[in-house]
Amino acid sequence: MKCKICKETANINLKYCGLKLCKTHFIEYIQKRVKRTIKRYQMVRREDKIAVALSGGKDSQTLLQILKKIYMDSNPLIGIHIDLGINNYSEASAKFVRILCDELEVPVHIIDIKKEYNFTIDKVKETKKIKRPICANCGLVKRYVINAFARKLKADVLATGHVLDDEVSVLLSNLINGNFEQLIRGGPFLPSTDVSIVARIKPLYEVSEYETTLYAHFNNIPYIETPCPYDVNATISSYKEITNKLEEMHPGARYSLLRSYVKIYKKAFQAYNTEKQQEICHCTICGGPTISNICAFCSLRKKLEGNT
Amino acid sequence: MKCKICKETANINLKYCGLKLCKTHFIEYIQKRVKRTIKRYQMVRREDKIAVALSGGKDSQTLLQILKKIYMDSNPLIGIHIDLGINNYSEASAKFVRILCDELEVPVHIIDIKKEYNFTIDKVKETKKIKRPICANCGLVKRYVINAFARKLKADVLATGHVLDDEVSVLLSNLINGNFEQLIRGGPFLPSTDVSIVARIKPLYEVSEYETTLYAHFNNIPYIETPCPYDVNATISSYKEITNKLEEMHPGARYSLLRSYVKIYKKAFQAYNTEKQQEICHCTICGGPTISNICAFCSLRKKLEGNT
Repeated sequence: MKCKICKETANINLKYCGLKLCKTHFIEYIQKRVKRTIKRYQMVRREDKIAVALSGGKDSQTLLQILKKIYMDSNPLIGIHIDLGINNYSEASAKFVRILCDELEVPVHIIDIKKEYNFTIDKVKETKKIKRPICANCGLVKRYVINAFARKLKADVLATGHVLDDEVSVLLSNLINGNFEQLIRGGPFLPSTDVSIVARIKPLYEVSEYETTLYAHFNNIPYIETPCPYDVNATISSYKEITNKLEEMHPGARYSLLRSYVKIYKKAFQAYNTEKQQEICHCTICGGPTISNICAFCSLRKKLEGNT
Repeated sequence: MKCKICKETANINLKYCGLKLCKTHFIEYIQKRVKRTIKRYQMVRREDKIAVALSGGKDSQTLLQILKKIYMDSNPLIGIHIDLGINNYSEASAKFVRILCDELEVPVHIIDIKKEYNFTIDKVKETKKIKRPICANCGLVKRYVINAFARKLKADVLATGHVLDDEVSVLLSNLINGNFEQLIRGGPFLPSTDVSIVARIKPLYEVSEYETTLYAHFNNIPYIETPCPYDVNATISSYKEITNKLEEMHPGARYSLLRSYVKIYKKAFQAYNTEKQQEICHCTICGGPTISNICAFCSLRKKLEGNT
């Protein structure tokens, strides 16, 4: 098996496009892909300050390394990591984030939610009166805190490490369950709809988990390999199993579905949406974005403090 | 396990709705479902003459039996079967169609394409210069002939035996491959868009293959069990495998996707479709519907006769 570019021995065979590549040209290929995605969806403007949400995991660490390669001489990059206070997990995650940021000379802000907001995800898990699944609450906390600090740090865009596998599984789930609201709002670039919301971009939207794993491996990118102890999100995992099977049977099917969604379906859904867009208000406690008086994050905090 | 309705022993457990039913109440339940589908999508008007496309297989035979139950005293029913000239298959199919139509006292028209059009599907298969897969050509022939005879017999609607499994597999394939044209035109009720086209309805749109199999079994409905010798349509089979897996993991997922499609997605796609609808012309040879001078069926015949 020979590399399509240099004719040296190829290590990788990308079935969905019939491309065989050596390590060097695979790395180049993935970097080019991310560049293309950023350009295609007009994610970053000249001089935009880019905040990168870092979990310590494979995907976001890879994202930071690639963004550094692309924006080394142009745009300022900052890392944001949230110390969620998960025992035996959060400390290790933060360590990997620090190692990579040091290596790449990217300034990083580690937000300890215990210090900032006086609770931890472990505490949320333990609190019996909180009914929603822990992963849903953790997601809420991460979205809130990352956005709040990206704003504070005056970032123009917030990049997250969502990869093709994540996105296509959520898309399939939304299509099946008729989650029209989600279908209207999904995609690789979520513009800021209010002064309190930083625009979100997903530069790995067209890169698979298999590819980030290989990329991280070839580049010796440090990342936490143990999964979060609460990560038992069976519903999305089952959709991932389905989309993986689909990809196995029809290589390229996942990418094709995502592209059709962004190019056609999402636009059709947006045009068809006759519902009045829910107006964004500002939380009376924190000033953050909400559609009611108090935002979901402050409600969660109030519950934890036993005020409701 | 007890029947939800009569508390007798239940033979069937419908996982997608958590319903346990005995044989009698399962039969009633399926008939009611078909009635609901017909009403929901306004498929049949009072006194409409309904032509039923009969292949001799499980689904269309079941469809005819149910339609007879529903329309016994109101609408005229006629069966149409095409003898495709497939050796060791077509004769047997026709036999099963005749047996059921006799039993139900439904008049049936068996169209021998050898007599009517001077070719057979076996001949299409043998002809080397015809490049399209045999199933695609056979589909074209069936659609053409069934429509032509439904028209001739002055049918108001043409019912086909497509079941939920077929429809959801094709829908998923179309969504993945971005077949926007197909997504606009799919669904359980395809109205007549030209005087040369009979409206098509799919009363089993919300009934699964598993359910028609059980229904046919419980009612001793005769049908051909051997598959068509050319039936190696691997692409759609693989999507069926995927959607079956999906249903196994999330009972009801297939129905949910189809409903969301008909209720929302299709409407959004139609509204978004800025392309001018291709005008339907009439074939200069047969007068049938086409978008060019000569329809695909007449082109196929010309190829078979060696005129092109």
